[in-house]
Amino acid sequence: MKEFFLVKPLNEVRAFAELFVPVGAEVVPLEQAWGRVTAQDILSQDSVPPFARSTMDGFAVAARSTFGASFSNPCQLAVVGTVPMGKAAGFGIGPGQAASIPTGGMLPKGADAVVMVEHTETIDDITIEVYKSISPQENVILAGEDIAAGQIALAAGTRIRAQEAALLAAVGVCEVPVFLRPVVGILSTGDEVDPPSAAPAPGRIRDMNTYALCGQCLGAGCTPLALGIVPDKEEPLFEAIANALSRCDILLLSGGSSVGARDLAVGAILKCSQAKILAHGVAISPGKPTIVAQAGPKPIIGLPGHVVSAMVAFEVVAKPFLHRLAGLAGDQAPPLVKARLSRNLAKKKGREEFVRVRLVAKDGEIVAQPILGKSGEIRTMIAADGLLRIPANDEGMEAGEQAFVLPLT
Amino acid sequence: MKEFFLVKPLNEVRAFAELFVPVGAEVVPLEQAWGRVTAQDILSQDSVPPFARSTMDGFAVAARSTFGASFSNPCQLAVVGTVPMGKAAGFGIGPGQAASIPTGGMLPKGADAVVMVEHTETIDDITIEVYKSISPQENVILAGEDIAAGQIALAAGTRIRAQEAALLAAVGVCEVPVFLRPVVGILSTGDEVDPPSAAPAPGRIRDMNTYALCGQCLGAGCTPLALGIVPDKEEPLFEAIANALSRCDILLLSGGSSVGARDLAVGAILKCSQAKILAHGVAISPGKPTIVAQAGPKPIIGLPGHVVSAMVAFEVVAKPFLHRLAGLAGDQAPPLVKARLSRNLAKKKGREEFVRVRLVAKDGEIVAQPILGKSGEIRTMIAADGLLRIPANDEGMEAGEQAFVLPLT
Repeated sequence: MKEFFLVKPLNEVRAFAELFVPVGAEVVPLEQAWGRVTAQDILSQDSVPPFARSTMDGFAVAARSTFGASFSNPCQLAVVGTVPMGKAAGFGIGPGQAASIPTGGMLPKGADAVVMVEHTETIDDITIEVYKSISPQENVILAGEDIAAGQIALAAGTRIRAQEAALLAAVGVCEVPVFLRPVVGILSTGDEVDPPSAAPAPGRIRDMNTYALCGQCLGAGCTPLALGIVPDKEEPLFEAIANALSRCDILLLSGGSSVGARDLAVGAILKCSQAKILAHGVAISPGKPTIVAQAGPKPIIGLPGHVVSAMVAFEVVAKPFLHRLAGLAGDQAPPLVKARLSRNLAKKKGREEFVRVRLVAKDGEIVAQPILGKSGEIRTMIAADGLLRIPANDEGMEAGEQAFVLPLT
Repeated sequence: MKEFFLVKPLNEVRAFAELFVPVGAEVVPLEQAWGRVTAQDILSQDSVPPFARSTMDGFAVAARSTFGASFSNPCQLAVVGTVPMGKAAGFGIGPGQAASIPTGGMLPKGADAVVMVEHTETIDDITIEVYKSISPQENVILAGEDIAAGQIALAAGTRIRAQEAALLAAVGVCEVPVFLRPVVGILSTGDEVDPPSAAPAPGRIRDMNTYALCGQCLGAGCTPLALGIVPDKEEPLFEAIANALSRCDILLLSGGSSVGARDLAVGAILKCSQAKILAHGVAISPGKPTIVAQAGPKPIIGLPGHVVSAMVAFEVVAKPFLHRLAGLAGDQAPPLVKARLSRNLAKKKGREEFVRVRLVAKDGEIVAQPILGKSGEIRTMIAADGLLRIPANDEGMEAGEQAFVLPLT
């Protein structure tokens, strides 16, 4: 049994992402900020909310006016006015007084709480009875209680989801500094690979990997740049890589599953300016023949040729590099799923294994059902909801054991 | 305690989505199909792979030529040629013969298996020794083993992820029939709401909900159409709704948390052509004052005014309607996360509760940490990774109990 390359543990390979930096920043209108990553800390210039607001329909009061009130011993308050929606009340209230207030209304001067309308009874036009003693700040959201002026609203490196966009609106940030989306060059390699448009001749197959990787890049918030198919010959491969590097921020090669083709890829990469191989082989399965390299400031990831291996290596090896170039702070991957394995799985010690699984909810639990098949079979990824991870030192897992699953969304 | 409206259980309300149909279909190039939903069953015209391929570097053989071979008793085979990559071999092999073949190479006639190069020794230019007995089909992916010609490659209603795009490439579908993305009209309502661009006057607040809902629509694969802010007055509200309905496939209103505002919204909706209220209140928390209505073929969802309530109601009430209009078959929501609750939570019986939680991996488990705060506070959603669901009939949950969590991505 020969060992063709020196594999490195996955964690060590992922750590190489730290060698790179985000590709630049720009300012976009808030309307286009969803899915982007903040390029600097964003301070709140204003308080949110800007004033003390009622969270209920009811009566604004000084809480102490209600102290001691109960269903059997209500207190009477004088209604001195109605707070208009969207305006400051033109009046204040004193002890023993109340003002009708809608949800979202601004508390008038002298009020520090709101009695829900359900806990009152209208006696006449200017009198209510209150059936409950309330505390200061009850049914009120204070000025700055959500975000105080001067606070960091969003830290640099935050992915802008729906709620982050809402927060930017709340603090009036209509022009948002965000990192550029990394442009990911995608080169398919292989003497046997054709574009999908024509029926392949004998011995030839259609290029799947370009389309898989373009989709994965979009899912990772990057801009894919499909650069076509290159034969497994060093000179054209080198020229394609050099040309690609001038047009992208990170380059993904895929193909070359044969040993000869992998050696060719390494040779072609090393001919590039400031090129260096960081890892030649990663201790994962599938995906072991993955190459991680750099050409100056740009990472180059050589993914395996089998489409499933390429996709898994993208998820676990390439993604941290994409995230790093995109400026995402720390590990902002979606939360892992924990699932119960439906059957025994054997595995070789020494490499992290990522098993395609279907996830089904069953008896209040999430069950992971392994999908059997070869790493060249795309149907196994179609059926998969996630990749169940078996740590490197385990020799397998038994049915019923719990494991972490990386969702494939 | 007055009951202002008749609430319906969440499941009942979600089932109203079945009243609606997808908004139409179009054909897009494969390069633009990622994230879209197939509008019809897509048949594979070809077999994938189109021929029997080697999955290893090695020697193509008739498996029976190796029967009985072992490390201590190797068999000798005559090497009759090399399979070129991307072409059919111009020769066949017989018993006792082998052909050198690269990973991905097409098996020559007469071969039914591949011996890995690691299990052979080269004796001379035309002779190898094989150290292992292999079975037919070993290290081979058969023609059509991934997808057989004539099979349904993707069923109608499938969201096209990276792997589905790869599969379409594999079967040569370069023009993909997909459902139109639903256009989601978004109207913010409220007399106190201003666009985020200017500093709000006393009593007024910036519009957050439009931006939250636009982001959520994008995340759900729909096209948001922000239609601005309308005051809480029946005539302008009716006009804005009627105008919006002419421009979108589904309309989201948000705002009107006061009882008066909600009644106004119901009144304005009912003035529209073919309008009907399907639910006035949903048994969820937050999000109870959600209205579900229809104007002929178009759903109208009246979301609460508090931004957190609006976002939760979007996730659990509005999304099934969006998915239905988008043509997604069945429940293609991302897999739920199961997590262990970090502290006790009390709750009222009778409504499903969705608790904002942070998810952290701890001791090999996923722990859900509830985020405390009011439903008007966007910071609570910024801190949240998901919504932990407490079923309607539970009165709360204890620390350490497991619950399902809907990820907020």
